[in-house]
Amino acid sequence: MSAIAPRPAIVTDFSLVTGLSQSRTPLQRRISAMAGMYADQGAAQRLAQEDVLVYEFFDMGVPDSPGEVAYGTSITYPGKVGDEYFMTKGHFHSVLDTAEIYYCLRGRGLLMMENPEGDVQWEELTPGKGVYVPGRYAHRSINTSPDEPLITFFAFPGHAGHDYGTIESKGFRKIVVERDGAPLVVDNPQWAQ
Amino acid sequence: MSAIAPRPAIVTDFSLVTGLSQSRTPLQRRISAMAGMYADQGAAQRLAQEDVLVYEFFDMGVPDSPGEVAYGTSITYPGKVGDEYFMTKGHFHSVLDTAEIYYCLRGRGLLMMENPEGDVQWEELTPGKGVYVPGRYAHRSINTSPDEPLITFFAFPGHAGHDYGTIESKGFRKIVVERDGAPLVVDNPQWAQ
Ligand SMILES: [Mn+2]
Ligand SMILES: [Mn+2]
Repeated sequence: MSAIAPRPAIVTDFSLVTGLSQSRTPLQRRISAMAGMYADQGAAQRLAQEDVLVYEFFDMGVPDSPGEVAYGTSITYPGKVGDEYFMTKGHFHSVLDTAEIYYCLRGRGLLMMENPEGDVQWEELTPGKGVYVPGRYAHRSINTSPDEPLITFFAFPGHAGHDYGTIESKGFRKIVVERDGAPLVVDNPQWAQ
Repeated sequence: MSAIAPRPAIVTDFSLVTGLSQSRTPLQRRISAMAGMYADQGAAQRLAQEDVLVYEFFDMGVPDSPGEVAYGTSITYPGKVGDEYFMTKGHFHSVLDTAEIYYCLRGRGLLMMENPEGDVQWEELTPGKGVYVPGRYAHRSINTSPDEPLITFFAFPGHAGHDYGTIESKGFRKIVVERDGAPLVVDNPQWAQ
């Protein structure tokens, strides 16, 4: 006889105001870890001196299997590198054809998406908006608010995995800059075919 | 050559205040659809006359596959049937070993869980709390607030499916009633082995 062990539910606090938790520690990404991703390299190097915190997010360590759901909050802080808004590194999933849902809790921004075939999409994030990123699309959060953190709750299949390398070496096809006080999506001058 | 078609992101508004959407229609469950699930059958029959709305939730119709994530909000209204709090029907997943994350946006309640082996767990839901329901556990939301809707954002694997029948015929092992103005978890007198 094989007994099936009980499995405890996991309870975590994710503040609706800060996105942070009192019981778990987020992963943090500072400007120094992604300075090369911004178009204005001079501005990026200057900010890297102070090593400003750009974003943080939770990895809850759920098992790596299709029956599980990885989840947590992501907090991208307000700021710019030159005229380019603070953003996450962005990634494809290692299992490329896996989707992800982002639900915006606070702030204002864009979710940038592109697939390997070059289809580019972006959607606005405002509180209460859910954006379902289809499988095969890399995704990046971009905070376009002057003063508020962009906070999302995200969920994706446990077996998805992360491919950061493709974006690290090629970039996204589009970037988001401030023009006349408003966000504008423009071609990425650094994008590598 | 096989071209891979672009796939649009899906954007939906889910109010952080009401849980409802201006662009999508939720599924609604009225007391008449679940009167037999409450311990006080007389009270349930009386409420069924007015056919009170107990809860509503979204089925976004994502494809039924492990690379997808089903998601939406669930809104359980305040109320009682006798001294038993309003609740969702609750279900197992058809693919039993699939998990689900519930993130509480508003209100107060409990998430009741049990597995086929009889392990019973429950966790409090308050704003900002995330409860990860492990695979193999049936789950039900219960609103213990006197006046506020219990609103959660949920996500589960696309291939999970729903088994409502097991709970409809057996019930959960525990129910939640008001005693001296506070919620109390007690044995379900109707529970069928
Ligand atoms: Mn992702
Ligand atoms: Mn479920």
